[in-house]
Amino acid sequence: MSTALHVPPAGPNRATSCRMASFGTALLLSVAAAPLHADEGMWTLTDFPRERILRKYEFNASDEWLKKVQLASLRLANGCSGAFVSPQGLVMSNHHCVSECIVEQSSSQRDLNKNGYYAATLAGELKCSSLELNQLIDIEDVTAKLQGVTRGVSDGEFGVVLRREISRLETACATATKLRCDVVTLYHGGKYHLYKYRRFSDVRLVFLPETATARFGGDPDNFNYPRYSLDVSFVRVYENGQPLKSPHYFPVNPVGVAPGELVFATGNPGTTQRLMTVAQLEFLRDVANPEVIVYLAELRGHILEFAKLGAEQRRIATEPLYGVENWYKSLLGQQETLVSRNFLSAKRSSEEALRAQVAQNPDWQKRFGGAWDALARSQDELRKIYKEHTLLEVGRAFNSTLFHYARQLVRAAEELPKPSDQRLTEYRDSALPSLTHELLARSTLYPQLEALTLTYSLGKLREALGPNHPFVKEVFGPYSPEEIARNLIGSSRLSDVAVRKALWDGGSKAILASTDPMIRFAKAVDAQSRMIRRQYQDSVESVEKKNSELVAQALFAVQGTSVYPDATFSLRVTYGTVRGYKDMGMELSPITLLGGAFERHTGREPFVLPASWLAAKSRLKGSTPLNFVSALDIVGGNSGSPVLNRDAQVVGTVFDGNLPSLGGAFFYDDTANRAVAVHTSGLFEALRGIYQAHPLVKELQLAASPAPSPPARPATAPPPGKR
Amino acid sequence: MSTALHVPPAGPNRATSCRMASFGTALLLSVAAAPLHADEGMWTLTDFPRERILRKYEFNASDEWLKKVQLASLRLANGCSGAFVSPQGLVMSNHHCVSECIVEQSSSQRDLNKNGYYAATLAGELKCSSLELNQLIDIEDVTAKLQGVTRGVSDGEFGVVLRREISRLETACATATKLRCDVVTLYHGGKYHLYKYRRFSDVRLVFLPETATARFGGDPDNFNYPRYSLDVSFVRVYENGQPLKSPHYFPVNPVGVAPGELVFATGNPGTTQRLMTVAQLEFLRDVANPEVIVYLAELRGHILEFAKLGAEQRRIATEPLYGVENWYKSLLGQQETLVSRNFLSAKRSSEEALRAQVAQNPDWQKRFGGAWDALARSQDELRKIYKEHTLLEVGRAFNSTLFHYARQLVRAAEELPKPSDQRLTEYRDSALPSLTHELLARSTLYPQLEALTLTYSLGKLREALGPNHPFVKEVFGPYSPEEIARNLIGSSRLSDVAVRKALWDGGSKAILASTDPMIRFAKAVDAQSRMIRRQYQDSVESVEKKNSELVAQALFAVQGTSVYPDATFSLRVTYGTVRGYKDMGMELSPITLLGGAFERHTGREPFVLPASWLAAKSRLKGSTPLNFVSALDIVGGNSGSPVLNRDAQVVGTVFDGNLPSLGGAFFYDDTANRAVAVHTSGLFEALRGIYQAHPLVKELQLAASPAPSPPARPATAPPPGKR
Repeated sequence: MSTALHVPPAGPNRATSCRMASFGTALLLSVAAAPLHADEGMWTLTDFPRERILRKYEFNASDEWLKKVQLASLRLANGCSGAFVSPQGLVMSNHHCVSECIVEQSSSQRDLNKNGYYAATLAGELKCSSLELNQLIDIEDVTAKLQGVTRGVSDGEFGVVLRREISRLETACATATKLRCDVVTLYHGGKYHLYKYRRFSDVRLVFLPETATARFGGDPDNFNYPRYSLDVSFVRVYENGQPLKSPHYFPVNPVGVAPGELVFATGNPGTTQRLMTVAQLEFLRDVANPEVIVYLAELRGHILEFAKLGAEQRRIATEPLYGVENWYKSLLGQQETLVSRNFLSAKRSSEEALRAQVAQNPDWQKRFGGAWDALARSQDELRKIYKEHTLLEVGRAFNSTLFHYARQLVRAAEELPKPSDQRLTEYRDSALPSLTHELLARSTLYPQLEALTLTYSLGKLREALGPNHPFVKEVFGPYSPEEIARNLIGSSRLSDVAVRKALWDGGSKAILASTDPMIRFAKAVDAQSRMIRRQYQDSVESVEKKNSELVAQALFAVQGTSVYPDATFSLRVTYGTVRGYKDMGMELSPITLLGGAFERHTGREPFVLPASWLAAKSRLKGSTPLNFVSALDIVGGNSGSPVLNRDAQVVGTVFDGNLPSLGGAFFYDDTANRAVAVHTSGLFEALRGIYQAHPLVKELQLAASPAPSPPARPATAPPPGKR
Repeated sequence: MSTALHVPPAGPNRATSCRMASFGTALLLSVAAAPLHADEGMWTLTDFPRERILRKYEFNASDEWLKKVQLASLRLANGCSGAFVSPQGLVMSNHHCVSECIVEQSSSQRDLNKNGYYAATLAGELKCSSLELNQLIDIEDVTAKLQGVTRGVSDGEFGVVLRREISRLETACATATKLRCDVVTLYHGGKYHLYKYRRFSDVRLVFLPETATARFGGDPDNFNYPRYSLDVSFVRVYENGQPLKSPHYFPVNPVGVAPGELVFATGNPGTTQRLMTVAQLEFLRDVANPEVIVYLAELRGHILEFAKLGAEQRRIATEPLYGVENWYKSLLGQQETLVSRNFLSAKRSSEEALRAQVAQNPDWQKRFGGAWDALARSQDELRKIYKEHTLLEVGRAFNSTLFHYARQLVRAAEELPKPSDQRLTEYRDSALPSLTHELLARSTLYPQLEALTLTYSLGKLREALGPNHPFVKEVFGPYSPEEIARNLIGSSRLSDVAVRKALWDGGSKAILASTDPMIRFAKAVDAQSRMIRRQYQDSVESVEKKNSELVAQALFAVQGTSVYPDATFSLRVTYGTVRGYKDMGMELSPITLLGGAFERHTGREPFVLPASWLAAKSRLKGSTPLNFVSALDIVGGNSGSPVLNRDAQVVGTVFDGNLPSLGGAFFYDDTANRAVAVHTSGLFEALRGIYQAHPLVKELQLAASPAPSPPARPATAPPPGKR
């Protein structure tokens, strides 16, 4: 997918970062297809385990409660989660979930990373043209429709037929409803649901603390605990130039939570692999993960040295570096689980047990029996084309935002004249609003950094395929990666959004006639990239889709739907209690205090609190809770997820998982997997005592006051906030 | 081992680089413990497969032939091979085998990488204080002695008893013979041989081409073929200030070889893992290799950006970068074999077959049956301590030559007062000459680069163990990796060889009293490092030694000694023919021509021929063979190995293996594994036509003339060369 083209800005728990690490003894009990023993699960609203929760916690998740959860929760299209927290469209999420906006609104004159931002009035709120928010309005089960058209279709054709029908359903839905309509593949095809979203694209920045506190502890503390971070942000959704009226919102509870309390997180976990077969996991362990890890490791070295060149370089490297380090660390954590001595053998046992049960029923055996071997064969095919596919089509060889734009334009020129259901999936009608939103967002690009990443990635192309590979010879001619990159970045005009807009508006003709060197370059490498994509779709993806669906059906046949689907960056609710865990033999308290941040401050990066904190120290109550961990089952994509109490009040915001949570990609380890969140008590203390953000505090208070407890039904018509 | 402390300068085939990659169909036939079908094998002189070669090639390797091979071959203590090629102590090896000397003799005024070097007279030859050469004088079988003392000893004690007896044997030998005496562990303990070497430490540089031709094609062409490199060097051994009289030498044949010809390579392959068990290979695949690869990947990024800072930075980064890139690429190649779908499953089958045969014989089962499980357990233990062991004891956390010196001194202070057989093995009497040679060699260190690598590696320490680890807290206090590194590198005086010498000569008292900050730092981290080393030795190494020995004995019991031992950086002879192979569907010719170098010259790094070549172009015969490949079974450590014809004349110098040869760490793939060598015909053409090195050419010609063919016995008393 060309969307993964450049290393995306990502935070600890954004969907772009897969997740997971070392683990405890729970493994043998909790591999997929084994019964659930802990509070695990990223549950859909349509299959929420009400009975289980009622039995264990005497809490009844009513229809009303679930409806509120659905409508007050938000998906950030960039890979995060968030929630409405006032009736004036105020949204709470993480600092690292708005990093595109930080980049967009920063310059050598205004450094949002360094200084944070706070708009005390509506007029001061800063437009984030790169942010898109989605509110889930409705869910429709389309399993029967899709399984109907693919019945009896061959391995190689399956993907084409499925993609076409998905496109048809989405387009029909979008036309009828004017909503964003996405078919969500649950249980790898066991179920298909059509999710209908209201899209918000006028989003403005209200409050952002300094990066020094949001990422206090930097990379060393990332995925670590205890933590002392204020990784929050507030943005506001506008409609027709006015703050959105948002009757569905979660009031923020200024007291927060206590140890042992039952909590929920709603949000959009990105990807898990808990239902994957052994062959697929082996591929991940042996090929896919190591490839990315090594790619990121060297890139990190380049960016770190680049950042030493001066203050401005350091500033512009901040976000890309964060994205790289975060992705790198999360994959290393995942890999630790994949290579551990027990994980795959336990997985193998449970897979063999499932296959044995299938084999005992002749009908099942006939329908599902061949799926595992077919999946294994698909992984063998993938091994053959993996390098070329990731380099050319995933775009690891062309790590440049300008290239990404160029490819989007070049492909749009070829795809848009076709009927929607015959296009590459990212150009189908239903995907175009998001595509244009991204392509035409105001973006701030740094040629030095673009040249660095493109030089690096072109070097990787030559390194991986060898200098004698025909495609490499064609791309390079006599030139070096550096020369090619410098020339393309130096002379392309695509960093100007007006140029991109003109090309987009001009359509195929304008794009194909463009002499922009990056457009020409993207065109030159497109045939080979498309060829490898076709090969991938036919011999890998299609076979995977068909046979994963069969494995899921086998699982339903044997176990029913007591199992939850793998994460798909769509709305899920997870539950658990506020609990510590053991690390290096020590029991860690589930809650950290504001005073701890000052103790951890060494004055050396990355353990440096911002000046605002140091100045406010005497005014602050050190015993205020700042962060907390809970046994919520979350992964990347849950960043910004509200942590709710039984009354659906916000008591925290998830911003990270601990190291053992990285293993959550593959299984949930009740003993150590913990979500890390900002405690709302610390949040209020900081907003008041450090940032003097009194209008914001007041808006939150007013939003919470009309229905203090229990606000289990949507708050309606609250009095207008002061602003 | 502290010897692997800093990333060593290494070339394609130096022993410091392990080796190996993609592979063909020969796999199932050639995993260890399966019969040998191809010309594979790194044979010892004591078990040379004369019969097999006689049958297949009608060549009789006489005692005389083998004796000559033994005495004219050389081991470079830095991880390379070489050979005497004249009776005046002239030695031929690779350019990349003398890189320490390049660094030592280069400065911002004299750049040997850029300009090469040639001394037309003895007086101009440059002292390489960092080079040590070893000539194998005698081999003694000490298997019975060592197996005698370890009989019945427990898993945990085995290593201690073995180390003590080895130290005793070596010291006794060194005392009696004044030679360097090393016990070589063959077949992982199936046999133990005492190798007695004459040490040469006065080595001077005679001829070195420009790095641009020696490494033509740079990293992209490393482990690649076709190749166009002049990766050669000539040094001369001196004794008492005069050129050594070296009656045992190989004449250089100026015609070289033709396709199909039988050839031999003598040299010191570093490490192979062909006899390792599945559990050991899994550890390598899952933990050890990935850890180094990722470490090197990021370090590479740092050094590459550092090299962009200016011409001087580029110059001083050349050798470290080369070492990192070469090691990295060779490990990536190895890893490709380890994760391939067939390799480990084939290995598992052959291991199971061997275990089944052992189980059928009650006596064997009793003696050897438990070895595989014991080895698997040792790998589980290793997983637990691996991170700390590599960081602290292997020294991955302290990547700095100054630290390396400091640790050598600190440990010497503690070890030397003990009896030799109770010291850490690198401080036993027999090891001291090499240790002091290294410690007291003139070395050129660059503080900027030292600070970079130490900052990087300290960062890795914090990253791997986490900022809350007690040892990390102790090492760092409130400081950043950069501050610590800058302070240590900036204020230590250990870069001055006189300071090191004074400390060494002053003994324990002087060292322990030293206030040099790096000495104090090395002292501060030593207790923890030694603790993890002890744990490693007792719970891993000792168990591995004992049980690997049992596996080897089982193999001998079942198969006899028709199998060759894994490489151990000791003298081996391998044989094969000059043959091409298939790559990307194309059959590659085994010989490349000088003219091809000019065709591959693009004028862009790393495809830039030196000015001397471009200037000489019209004088050169383009059809002269320059490089060639042969099916010689070589790995890292074979760099500089002479390629010999039946008459024991040098027809080439091994300088690399192709990508498939990287898999040679684990099995020999006859269809694709090839050694890459400089052809002597091209060598003479270059020496004459490009470098006008007429005295050197004359010395080589004179050396070859007294016994032009067949010089199958040692050439004696040749007329003195002109110089």
